[in-house]
Amino acid sequence: MADSERTGIWFIGARGSVATTATIGLYAIRRGVAASTGLVTAGADFVGVDLPSLDSLVVGGHDVSGLPLQARAQVIVDGGMVSAAIVAQVADELALTEQDLRPGYSVTSDETQQDAAERLRGDIVDFRERHGLARVVVVDVASTEPLVDDVPEFHDAELLGTALADPTRRVLPPSSLAAYAAILAGSPYVGFTPSSGMSLPVLVELATRAGLPIAGQDGKTGETLLRTALAPMFRARGMRVLSWAGANLLGGGDGATLADPEAVRSKLASKNRGLHELLGDDVVTPLHIDNVPDLGDVKTAWDNVHVEGFLGSRLTLQTTWTAYDSSLAAPLVLDLVRLLSLAHIAGTGGPVAAMGFFFKDPWGSDVHDFGEQTRALVDWAHTTSDAVAAAAPVGDAPAEAAPTEAAPTEYAASRV
Amino acid sequence: MADSERTGIWFIGARGSVATTATIGLYAIRRGVAASTGLVTAGADFVGVDLPSLDSLVVGGHDVSGLPLQARAQVIVDGGMVSAAIVAQVADELALTEQDLRPGYSVTSDETQQDAAERLRGDIVDFRERHGLARVVVVDVASTEPLVDDVPEFHDAELLGTALADPTRRVLPPSSLAAYAAILAGSPYVGFTPSSGMSLPVLVELATRAGLPIAGQDGKTGETLLRTALAPMFRARGMRVLSWAGANLLGGGDGATLADPEAVRSKLASKNRGLHELLGDDVVTPLHIDNVPDLGDVKTAWDNVHVEGFLGSRLTLQTTWTAYDSSLAAPLVLDLVRLLSLAHIAGTGGPVAAMGFFFKDPWGSDVHDFGEQTRALVDWAHTTSDAVAAAAPVGDAPAEAAPTEAAPTEYAASRV
Amino acid sequence: MADSERTGIWFIGARGSVATTATIGLYAIRRGVAASTGLVTAGADFVGVDLPSLDSLVVGGHDVSGLPLQARAQVIVDGGMVSAAIVAQVADELALTEQDLRPGYSVTSDETQQDAAERLRGDIVDFRERHGLARVVVVDVASTEPLVDDVPEFHDAELLGTALADPTRRVLPPSSLAAYAAILAGSPYVGFTPSSGMSLPVLVELATRAGLPIAGQDGKTGETLLRTALAPMFRARGMRVLSWAGANLLGGGDGATLADPEAVRSKLASKNRGLHELLGDDVVTPLHIDNVPDLGDVKTAWDNVHVEGFLGSRLTLQTTWTAYDSSLAAPLVLDLVRLLSLAHIAGTGGPVAAMGFFFKDPWGSDVHDFGEQTRALVDWAHTTSDAVAAAAPVGDAPAEAAPTEAAPTEYAASRV
Amino acid sequence: MADSERTGIWFIGARGSVATTATIGLYAIRRGVAASTGLVTAGADFVGVDLPSLDSLVVGGHDVSGLPLQARAQVIVDGGMVSAAIVAQVADELALTEQDLRPGYSVTSDETQQDAAERLRGDIVDFRERHGLARVVVVDVASTEPLVDDVPEFHDAELLGTALADPTRRVLPPSSLAAYAAILAGSPYVGFTPSSGMSLPVLVELATRAGLPIAGQDGKTGETLLRTALAPMFRARGMRVLSWAGANLLGGGDGATLADPEAVRSKLASKNRGLHELLGDDVVTPLHIDNVPDLGDVKTAWDNVHVEGFLGSRLTLQTTWTAYDSSLAAPLVLDLVRLLSLAHIAGTGGPVAAMGFFFKDPWGSDVHDFGEQTRALVDWAHTTSDAVAAAAPVGDAPAEAAPTEAAPTEYAASRV
Ligand SMILES: NC(=O)c1ccc[n+]([C@@H]2O[C@H](COP(=O)([O-])OP(=O)(O)OC[C@H]3O[C@@H](n4cnc5c(N)ncnc54)[C@H](O)[C@@H]3O)[C@@H](O)[C@H]2O)c1
Ligand SMILES: NC(=O)c1ccc[n+]([C@@H]2O[C@H](COP(=O)([O-])OP(=O)(O)OC[C@H]3O[C@@H](n4cnc5c(N)ncnc54)[C@H](O)[C@@H]3O)[C@@H](O)[C@H]2O)c1
Ligand SMILES: NC(=O)c1ccc[n+]([C@@H]2O[C@H](COP(=O)([O-])OP(=O)(O)OC[C@H]3O[C@@H](n4cnc5c(N)ncnc54)[C@H](O)[C@@H]3O)[C@@H](O)[C@H]2O)c1
Ligand SMILES: NC(=O)c1ccc[n+]([C@@H]2O[C@H](COP(=O)([O-])OP(=O)(O)OC[C@H]3O[C@@H](n4cnc5c(N)ncnc54)[C@H](O)[C@@H]3O)[C@@H](O)[C@H]2O)c1
Ligand code: NA
Ligand code: NA
Repeated sequence: MADSERTGIWFIGARGSVATTATIGLYAIRRGVAASTGLVTAGADFVGVDLPSLDSLVVGGHDVSGLPLQARAQVIVDGGMVSAAIVAQVADELALTEQDLRPGYSVTSDETQQDAAERLRGDIVDFRERHGLARVVVVDVASTEPLVDDVPEFHDAELLGTALADPTRRVLPPSSLAAYAAILAGSPYVGFTPSSGMSLPVLVELATRAGLPIAGQDGKTGETLLRTALAPMFRARGMRVLSWAGANLLGGGDGATLADPEAVRSKLASKNRGLHELLGDDVVTPLHIDNVPDLGDVKTAWDNVHVEGFLGSRLTLQTTWTAYDSSLAAPLVLDLVRLLSLAHIAGTGGPVAAMGFFFKDPWGSDVHDFGEQTRALVDWAHTTSDAVAAAAPVGDAPAEAAPTEAAPTEYAASRV
Repeated sequence: MADSERTGIWFIGARGSVATTATIGLYAIRRGVAASTGLVTAGADFVGVDLPSLDSLVVGGHDVSGLPLQARAQVIVDGGMVSAAIVAQVADELALTEQDLRPGYSVTSDETQQDAAERLRGDIVDFRERHGLARVVVVDVASTEPLVDDVPEFHDAELLGTALADPTRRVLPPSSLAAYAAILAGSPYVGFTPSSGMSLPVLVELATRAGLPIAGQDGKTGETLLRTALAPMFRARGMRVLSWAGANLLGGGDGATLADPEAVRSKLASKNRGLHELLGDDVVTPLHIDNVPDLGDVKTAWDNVHVEGFLGSRLTLQTTWTAYDSSLAAPLVLDLVRLLSLAHIAGTGGPVAAMGFFFKDPWGSDVHDFGEQTRALVDWAHTTSDAVAAAAPVGDAPAEAAPTEAAPTEYAASRV
Repeated sequence: MADSERTGIWFIGARGSVATTATIGLYAIRRGVAASTGLVTAGADFVGVDLPSLDSLVVGGHDVSGLPLQARAQVIVDGGMVSAAIVAQVADELALTEQDLRPGYSVTSDETQQDAAERLRGDIVDFRERHGLARVVVVDVASTEPLVDDVPEFHDAELLGTALADPTRRVLPPSSLAAYAAILAGSPYVGFTPSSGMSLPVLVELATRAGLPIAGQDGKTGETLLRTALAPMFRARGMRVLSWAGANLLGGGDGATLADPEAVRSKLASKNRGLHELLGDDVVTPLHIDNVPDLGDVKTAWDNVHVEGFLGSRLTLQTTWTAYDSSLAAPLVLDLVRLLSLAHIAGTGGPVAAMGFFFKDPWGSDVHDFGEQTRALVDWAHTTSDAVAAAAPVGDAPAEAAPTEAAPTEYAASRV
Repeated sequence: MADSERTGIWFIGARGSVATTATIGLYAIRRGVAASTGLVTAGADFVGVDLPSLDSLVVGGHDVSGLPLQARAQVIVDGGMVSAAIVAQVADELALTEQDLRPGYSVTSDETQQDAAERLRGDIVDFRERHGLARVVVVDVASTEPLVDDVPEFHDAELLGTALADPTRRVLPPSSLAAYAAILAGSPYVGFTPSSGMSLPVLVELATRAGLPIAGQDGKTGETLLRTALAPMFRARGMRVLSWAGANLLGGGDGATLADPEAVRSKLASKNRGLHELLGDDVVTPLHIDNVPDLGDVKTAWDNVHVEGFLGSRLTLQTTWTAYDSSLAAPLVLDLVRLLSLAHIAGTGGPVAAMGFFFKDPWGSDVHDFGEQTRALVDWAHTTSDAVAAAAPVGDAPAEAAPTEAAPTEYAASRV
């Protein structure tokens, strides 16, 4: 990648816990006040892969909350997730980023959805131009939305276009409106939440046609990560998992959101999908998420796995996972931005299956086995990076060729 | 493999919990009174691999205990691991197998060790001839022995020969004497215990020269299996495991043996090796095994994993594993017999690295990542099976050619 | 108690898991094939308390299921809770008891509820007379019912009488109809389930007026027992419990019943009451019960307790409880029969507060602290037993006087 | 207690984690920047008991380390146990207390032990006089010592006196030397560690004769507290505990000390005593303590309890306790100072059995049941406080009489 090239991260939910932690972390690692622990792409397996350096990333984003980034950082410090010392050292950077945050979209807004989408697109394009960025990767880390019912507009660009222009309709949930804006802005897109976002068929198709790589869905950070690392073990040993029950306790912003039974349904659906893909449909998988405010940002997940083995004998595995949820998610967001930049340079449009490593409900792939996903990711990174290098004109810096191929193609709104 | 061909299993420790469970299971599956759950080689991944059928396996073995196999089976039923109904259905087969059990070797015996080895070899060869077996795989599932100090005889066949003949010396621990007898009998060998067995350099070399495949060491069935499935997950996510502490509670025969601090040392050593290979030497790994007689054959293992993630934040994973230990081990023993038969037919001598999947301390391999081991095993099985088939003369049943290539080569005792 | 005197146990739900286990246990202890482990009144604290001996107890009961007792016992054996050997030894007694079981009442029946109540009463009285029993204690161990809405008939005997006679109405849920029948039969009553049973105000008053001791409600056997033993510890140490979350997994008959969200509500309500009484209303207490059929009769309960201590520091306690639920309940049922017999002899009518030791939701008491309940029970037993002895005419066997005082007073149906 | 009266706390190990946390907490509560959560004597059960107010306590102490109190407080903040904000608010008080700390005694010192004891006594007496204190309670919270072998001097004051004066001997371990100095200074004494301290028979007798109340031994704060709350539950329900296994992981100063197998032996001995008293000697109780430095001040204890119930069925309870160990201990130390002051005023000499509530290995009592201990403590406090009030001359403030009765009686060194 050309050293001079810079890449933008545009967070939907930029003042939230995940986005703020990722932002603090980016600056802290850059300043050398924190190690890159937790950052997948900083590991030995990625040596030789040409990714945007952390130094070259620039942060901006949308949020519907007005809580200043530094205030949010303080909340994170008070919760014990990040030390006050680290945040103090990146105060200047946070203040600068604050200036690149813009109001997000909420359904209560008066605008037509088409106008709203163009407003959001404008914010992203302005950000790209203001900072002279080669590309801006949009990352959805906003609050989980309730599940939406399917409508014909989600499958047909023309119907969607009409509905968006209709001042009386609100056809897209905010996450999907933001995804649509990302397409308009010619941005690669990461769907880190279980919200519908870019997952609507019509949006997937538009992104694919526009040559925009997309990756999702719902970051795999805790209990689900553990499950997709463990389930293949039972399978490889020929055992039969009878039930896999789970209890999740969490507070914080995400806990409060998930206290809403509608919002929690979309989360539960994506949490159990992997288990059933890996172990079959007969496994009994009761699962609960409870809002326990006193736990703050720490999530505790208990799983009880009941397994049948040789001659019908039984085995029980119980796991208790206790972690600051956002600090698991934050580095992955940075990884995804780096990797989708590479995909964009390589000219990949649509779902990038190899990103399944990061998600509960991987787009473009049925693989949930975490070991397999690890291998697929590393292979993809090397293969793609090598291909980009090979495609570069001799004597040229490898990345210079890429933008030509996959330059920020703004998707023409009129086409919808 | 030719349908007519039959394969022997010769257990060292044939009256123990693991061997008895494997024997019951073999007969129960054969009779159709139990499913093949837990048997790796019965899984979908092994379709197309030419392995000895369960119908073609014949069981015999050594033990120093005289407790009849049926009495031992009753103990296992009383402990709740196998149902009385299953054991009742295989009573006839157990009675027949009882007639193929012979007294093992113990250090208190009067014989020279050379005489003892030839006696054990004789038992194995008689068994093979009596039943007309194509080959006999020797499997060490005897009680764990204390660690032995290294001596020059473990590295030099000539020195070893002299020491074995010396009526005043007992240079080999019983497990290694049995391994030596396996070589003399021309048998492939599985070291399922942490005892020295076949692991002495001089024995490895003799087995290799004799074209005998060997696999070990120390069956990976519970806590260690779990650890080698989980540790790669943390590594793949770029996290730093700080400590991985473990507590093991078990009763039964193995519990009583491991109450001896010397015996436990050899077990603990092999249990922690994998973690350090996977995560580095800095990880703090306190580990205990306690004999808790009231727990009987059920083993409970608790692990506490403390991990550093992004920006120094901490994550804790606790796992509690509760299982009948022998019912985890028993099917693997049958798998190993089938797979080493294939290796023998294929003419492989010495450590078969791809068997690492089954062991805490794999011979011939440094790979501990269970996902990687799974892949390596499946690949090996298909490749080897295909190679054997390809080597078979046209128009011939594939396995008929094999015995020629890797016929039971008895290793000449005089060569030592 | 006069040695010649015999006491009946009349189970509502006599073919269920708890009743069958209690019945097997009674006979097994009596025959000397099982120890009295788990039986509170067999302990050292009760030496000197005059209770009906186990030899003097006779079992009968109602059930809506027709599954023979021996078949149910076999199900229990297959589930691993009781050994086949024990059940085999009490086969004769189970066959005899089978002859004392009668069809219970279900809302789908054609009878008026008054007729049904008299039919049930008749069964109990016949049983008493047939066996020449001094008294029959009715014990509700039937399936948990959904919560019922309050109606005026639950508070007024006259209104209730009218409704019962009305062929178009089903005013009482089956558990309360059975409780009403117990009053008619002059029987002390144990409400071991969370169903409404005897808890309706009108029934409590009728029982009290009839001099019938009653005890309830909802047996405290597992997670709740643990909680009421632990919560006082935190309180005594001045700590502040912030949240106490729970996950319950169970299969078996009770698991299937509680899969019904309505039935589970009545269970959850009584499970959390104790915690709030002990720790205040601010404690956050999410709680779930899931039906996991493969777990059979084994119940697994996981609790996560989050506590604030000195200077705001935090403490976490996690408990995992794994037990055959019915084998915890069964001995308590026998204890309660013995203790309510004593209460009846002593002439106590209405709720016996000292029985709170046995229940999640104690009648006549607000005490939930298990230590306090233990002391109260032991004190009550000695005091009451001593009072009965003191009241007995000199030279007379103590218990002979009692029946006079508290003879099976059949409550006149016409009074309702 | 007279409002004007002030009481000293003299910590042996004043710069350690427990002492520093207690000191911070005392000042924070006094300033109103922290609640009194965790302080037993601040609870509702102690209303009406006349104890020294927190305002009237003054802190000093010995330590062999020179690390300033504020530096130690910073270590505690960095470990996450106490917030920086709280420590900042009590900086002035900590600086003042620093001036009341004196060098402790270590066996490497040149002095005779008699000289050392008098030096320590001098420090305590100076402290009392300098601050005009009514009494000074000495509290041992120094590092755990290895177990010492019994010698005749531990049983005979004359032998002890000779040995102490002998410049070639070091007959007392440092903790006992400090206890002896407390007697010389006329101070009540709390033995919060498992070290021998005041437990030597000769010292107990000297303290008793001097009218000095003493309380010990080894603070009951975590796993043992939990065990003595739970074991009575199983007993009350007539169950038979078969085994109770434990694994303890901790870092910090105490973790490092307990990495020494000798030091750990004294800790393990007192940890298991209660279980055996409560449940009998047959219970199998393997127990380990591991030093896991990365856990810092957080201790994690896992217990596996295996229990036999009705008809031989089995129950398993697992508990996982995670807490900042010192924050559990710190408030108890303040409680003990307040309560021993009351005992001293009341004229009690020797072991105060009612203090068993606080200790793993209670002096003067065999009661380990935490519920019983709770009741005994509360009863003792009210009875003793009432007795002191009753003994006070009419018209006098209750506490004014007390000092007369139990004034700081310095124990004459010459008497030994
Ligand atoms: N380990 C993890 O933390 C993890 C894993 C997987 C998925 N996720 C998902 O990531 C998301 C963020 O989690 P979080 O803990 O940061 O939550 P959070 O509540 O702290 O932050 C969400 C942010 O989104 C903002 N927001 C809400 N609606 C918006 C809109 N329409 N447009 C723009 N911004 C909007 C909110 O104001 C808030 O600042 C959630 O959906 C969560 O489910 C998190
Ligand atoms: N999951 C597992 O069960 C598992 C996993 C890994 C390793 N292992 C190892 O497998 C071995 C067997 O375990 P088990 O539970 O069956 O133990 P066990 O005690 O039930 O059986 C061991 C048998 O070996 C016999 N024996 C002892 N010395 C002998 C000798 N010199 N020659 C012949 N026989 C001898 C004993 O008499 C006994 O019958 C142990 O070493 C154990 O560590 C078991
Ligand atoms: N530890 C425990 O097992 C425990 C603790 C507290 C409460 N309980 C309660 O005890 C009850 C019994 O539990 P179980 O495990 O034995 O359940 P179960 O399902 O095995 O047995 C219930 C029995 O009640 C019978 N029944 C249903 N409706 C009836 C009616 N109207 N009249 C007569 N019989 C009827 C059923 O046919 C069945 O045989 C449940 O309500 C449960 O909630 C059990
Ligand atoms: N929950 C708990 O924290 C708990 C419970 C029971 C017992 N204890 C006991 O309390 C003691 C203190 O624990 P901690 O965590 O504060 O340990 P720590 O290591 O932080 O502090 C011990 C202090 O004692 C000092 N010391 C050592 N030898 C001394 C001597 N001869 N004279 C004076 N000072 C000396 C050390 O320098 C250190 O400052 C330990 O013995 C521990 O076993 C603690
Ligand atoms: Na998918
Ligand atoms: Na009540």
